[in-house]
Amino acid sequence: MSPFRGSVPFTEDWRHFRFEHSAGIATLTFDRPDKLNALTFEAYADLRDLLAELPQRGDTRVLVLRGNGRAFCAGGDVNEIIGETLAMRPDQLLEFTRMTGEVVKAMRECPIPIIAALHGMAAGAGSVLALAADFRLGSHSAKFAFLFTKVGLSGADMGSAYLLPRIVGLGRATQLLMLGDTIRAEEAERIGLLSQLVPDEELDEAVRRLATRLAEGPAQGYAQTKALLTKELDMSLGGALELEAMTQALLMKTEDYAEFHAAFNAKRDPQWRGR
Amino acid sequence: MSPFRGSVPFTEDWRHFRFEHSAGIATLTFDRPDKLNALTFEAYADLRDLLAELPQRGDTRVLVLRGNGRAFCAGGDVNEIIGETLAMRPDQLLEFTRMTGEVVKAMRECPIPIIAALHGMAAGAGSVLALAADFRLGSHSAKFAFLFTKVGLSGADMGSAYLLPRIVGLGRATQLLMLGDTIRAEEAERIGLLSQLVPDEELDEAVRRLATRLAEGPAQGYAQTKALLTKELDMSLGGALELEAMTQALLMKTEDYAEFHAAFNAKRDPQWRGR
Amino acid sequence: MSPFRGSVPFTEDWRHFRFEHSAGIATLTFDRPDKLNALTFEAYADLRDLLAELPQRGDTRVLVLRGNGRAFCAGGDVNEIIGETLAMRPDQLLEFTRMTGEVVKAMRECPIPIIAALHGMAAGAGSVLALAADFRLGSHSAKFAFLFTKVGLSGADMGSAYLLPRIVGLGRATQLLMLGDTIRAEEAERIGLLSQLVPDEELDEAVRRLATRLAEGPAQGYAQTKALLTKELDMSLGGALELEAMTQALLMKTEDYAEFHAAFNAKRDPQWRGR
Repeated sequence: MSPFRGSVPFTEDWRHFRFEHSAGIATLTFDRPDKLNALTFEAYADLRDLLAELPQRGDTRVLVLRGNGRAFCAGGDVNEIIGETLAMRPDQLLEFTRMTGEVVKAMRECPIPIIAALHGMAAGAGSVLALAADFRLGSHSAKFAFLFTKVGLSGADMGSAYLLPRIVGLGRATQLLMLGDTIRAEEAERIGLLSQLVPDEELDEAVRRLATRLAEGPAQGYAQTKALLTKELDMSLGGALELEAMTQALLMKTEDYAEFHAAFNAKRDPQWRGR
Repeated sequence: MSPFRGSVPFTEDWRHFRFEHSAGIATLTFDRPDKLNALTFEAYADLRDLLAELPQRGDTRVLVLRGNGRAFCAGGDVNEIIGETLAMRPDQLLEFTRMTGEVVKAMRECPIPIIAALHGMAAGAGSVLALAADFRLGSHSAKFAFLFTKVGLSGADMGSAYLLPRIVGLGRATQLLMLGDTIRAEEAERIGLLSQLVPDEELDEAVRRLATRLAEGPAQGYAQTKALLTKELDMSLGGALELEAMTQALLMKTEDYAEFHAAFNAKRDPQWRGR
Repeated sequence: MSPFRGSVPFTEDWRHFRFEHSAGIATLTFDRPDKLNALTFEAYADLRDLLAELPQRGDTRVLVLRGNGRAFCAGGDVNEIIGETLAMRPDQLLEFTRMTGEVVKAMRECPIPIIAALHGMAAGAGSVLALAADFRLGSHSAKFAFLFTKVGLSGADMGSAYLLPRIVGLGRATQLLMLGDTIRAEEAERIGLLSQLVPDEELDEAVRRLATRLAEGPAQGYAQTKALLTKELDMSLGGALELEAMTQALLMKTEDYAEFHAAFNAKRDPQWRGR
């Protein structure tokens, strides 16, 4: 991934979520279980900064987002965020709302696949973080609530009005964003909002299995799949076809492509090197 | 909503549909039951004009479209419209087809949520009026027929080829618009074309409940959800994120947002004022 | 359709697939059953060239793509394509990948409706040819595998990252293109990837019935439905409405539109002439 670095050091201590790393798999755990992992200003800032650093560390192939306790993430904290914003000036408000959008932009532009491991509630900003992930694996306890109108705001928040219609269609997105009602896991799976639905006790193992597969697979192929899925939402057919042609021509010069062919003819599994 | 007015008076008498207003809920009833509520040139013109006036009246929070009799709306009248167009010059034809598109544009750009209450047939222009609504509530008798090719025209009419793929996906939209076959309520619900499916005898009550909820809710939040869902279909991710950041910063200065916070801490329901 | 010709002769002998023509229905059969109809460089070139000629011949109303033997099409041949590309220069690779994109572009821009008749495997390029068709009719044996990452390439190939999210939504498209796993017919139907699912022994008849219907129907209406569905994916709502208004005004001057009205009033079926 993009290893070019200048003077900026890497951050060794993320204070507003738990962060672990093992065998190419980075795991970010929202860890305020008594608050259903509600987000603070600092948690948004840490998300933004981690997503900028992570692809440059060169040691991460997949990122898992999860929540400690009964929920994935209940969104912005009612007092620590909503209460504070009531006293803010317009320029301060915009600095905050822009930062939340930067988190989503960084998630979509990050070349590393992101898995949201969903159990319990994903509400408000928590539901949009799930939307911005590449894979939404949920257990039967998972629920989404795009509840922004219920706090008097627009249902369009952090890119939800861009992402959700492209995931579940405009009709269902209108219903979910306008009303802010809770949608349960089974319905979320039916409409394409959950990528995979598993029993509660199997969620961790399903996430581990997918993360391991992504960590051990052809990283360039994954990165360029994600990048083009993201960019081509905003491109014409003609531009998209040219971009895909350029991408595959470049990837046909990678070691992994040659490795596939060698492995195929030797009747063995490919050993992906991610380059 | 947008109250600025100049010299133009409001229209007090809509002659080409029934129009009622009560407690913030406007109800437009297509009312030619013997013709399955087929549209005339004048009905299109009234739709266009009503949608321009309605947001300026300041008394309407939600618009319901419904049909009297056995159907929602059978589309353009075979003799009063199709027959007439056969004798028209190109410039006249274009004036007519552009007007039909203006109705759809006005529906999508109207800041008031629109509910289509669907029972019986929604065919041709009737099916596209349903597409342009925000909520499609249907009973089991509801049916859609995008039957334009069956009259020798393009299945793309009044924005159907823009809206339908964004609601049900390109594959299903191709099938529905190319062939023009009738799709029943259960299938429409399955593919996301109906927002909600209810028994025939419960449709009126379900519509009343949703309309009341929308009329009593945070009107600015709803208006900005609809506006951004509409605009962001045509925007890039980066532009959409900036628009959402600006929108939320503005809405954080509304009375309704402060009211949510006060109500939350007082453990009472918010009293939305729509500003 | 577009009959203007200059000096270029029509091709009478397509050597890299079987090609038959009868009563307005052209049928292209991938015919290397021992290789599961894997594609060669020459097959791509023939596809590109056929799609350019076909609309100009004036004798074709619908194109059916099908495969001989156990599969629809297994995609690019591992040795005849992947093996060869390993020895190619960047400019040669790009000439190849661009050609594959040109096939998809030609399929989407061809004014003739295209039916993919799917049984057995549609893998890699075979799965994207199916995506680029207008109708995907599959039997229970049909399977899709967008297996590009499994050969070390990007899951975005030949427009798959443009088309698939617009057919099944971004979440499901991410899962299918990133992982490259096989999706079975029933699941493909559920998510809108198959237009119609039929028992294995009824596939030929279902394809024949749809092809005949399209061949005998209002060709201009079908052509302009397809063209606008394709173009409007890349257009704004305002532009789309204007394009649809222009299109319908033009089609209201066709013989088929007058024929519908005459037939309706005479209580007989219309005799479509396709002009």
